[in-house]
Amino acid sequence: MPPRHLLQLLKDGGLKDIVGVPTSIRTYEQAKSLGIPLATLDEQPKLDVAIDGADEVDPNLDVVKGRGGALLREKMVEMASSKFVCIVDDSKLVEGLGGSKLAMPVEIVQFCHLYTLQRLQNLEEVKGCVAKLRMEGDKPYVTDNSNYIVDLYFETPIVDAHAASKAILALEGVVDHGLFLDMVDVCIIAGSNGVEVKERPNKN
Amino acid sequence: MPPRHLLQLLKDGGLKDIVGVPTSIRTYEQAKSLGIPLATLDEQPKLDVAIDGADEVDPNLDVVKGRGGALLREKMVEMASSKFVCIVDDSKLVEGLGGSKLAMPVEIVQFCHLYTLQRLQNLEEVKGCVAKLRMEGDKPYVTDNSNYIVDLYFETPIVDAHAASKAILALEGVVDHGLFLDMVDVCIIAGSNGVEVKERPNKN
Repeated sequence: MPPRHLLQLLKDGGLKDIVGVPTSIRTYEQAKSLGIPLATLDEQPKLDVAIDGADEVDPNLDVVKGRGGALLREKMVEMASSKFVCIVDDSKLVEGLGGSKLAMPVEIVQFCHLYTLQRLQNLEEVKGCVAKLRMEGDKPYVTDNSNYIVDLYFETPIVDAHAASKAILALEGVVDHGLFLDMVDVCIIAGSNGVEVKERPNKN
Repeated sequence: MPPRHLLQLLKDGGLKDIVGVPTSIRTYEQAKSLGIPLATLDEQPKLDVAIDGADEVDPNLDVVKGRGGALLREKMVEMASSKFVCIVDDSKLVEGLGGSKLAMPVEIVQFCHLYTLQRLQNLEEVKGCVAKLRMEGDKPYVTDNSNYIVDLYFETPIVDAHAASKAILALEGVVDHGLFLDMVDVCIIAGSNGVEVKERPNKN
């Protein structure tokens, strides 16, 4: 949740006794400057709720995240939360992940990154994708963890996102990816006809 | 293989037309200073042979590596090789991995490393292990990839190394680990009675 909204709720008394765990250095700095109580997962390994956006949401509430580059920290914090609430507008809804034709990010170590990029693109589980190293000006974009990002672009949605997730994680040099599967509990979707709240089907 | 041995073979004419891919910054610098032709996996994605030591070798020729801290680079290079030859003395032989009571290293991102350390230690698949952050003086040891190392210590060998591997890799924040499974093709073992050469049983 954007730190300035949290601050307003704290001021109004709508929220109290909270501690926040930021998912990026940028959010950390913003929240700190506003005086919001902060902790890390080291200090607070169990969180009550995570609230975040997503880049794509499929009918099972599996999502793609991390186009902003903070996918690993977001995933760690959201995995530590009892409840993960995702807020999007209906432009983010897709029939299958990868279907927006926008990037599905994969965080990789810098060492031999072109080799890892090629191996990613060659994976049977993401067949047909185009892999591109994310740039910032004329240099590779560097994540908060000193890694690079390879963006995968799909012409058609990923056939089996769970299989793709496993195959991508099994590659040496891959740190994590932007497929957030079986994680979202509730999705709040804003559309032209108002706001819809969807709960994960078959939630364990 | 140590760069100075390679140099001797190149000088003797025992080796020619070779290109080496170093597995650590230290080896890279050593090899470069000796004038050995070098490449990266980006330039040479398929290698003929990798030769390296190991910290533990089990009866299936599955090994633990990376106590030196370069496990990820070693694994990437050795996965890229058609043949992986492992050279050890018989003090490295164990009945089951983890059995030497020395460290099995796991490379993790710095972000919330104590949280990740705790999650590692709590994994059912490595039950009973003790997880320790590797230190260098009074600071955490930092890998060539700017990550930390958590060393897992076992009282009894890992029951199912493949299950442990998958569970460890599935944790967000984990980059890779020192279990090198189904990778060694040939192991050369020096003992008091001479040298034994073992080939992987049931090699695919």
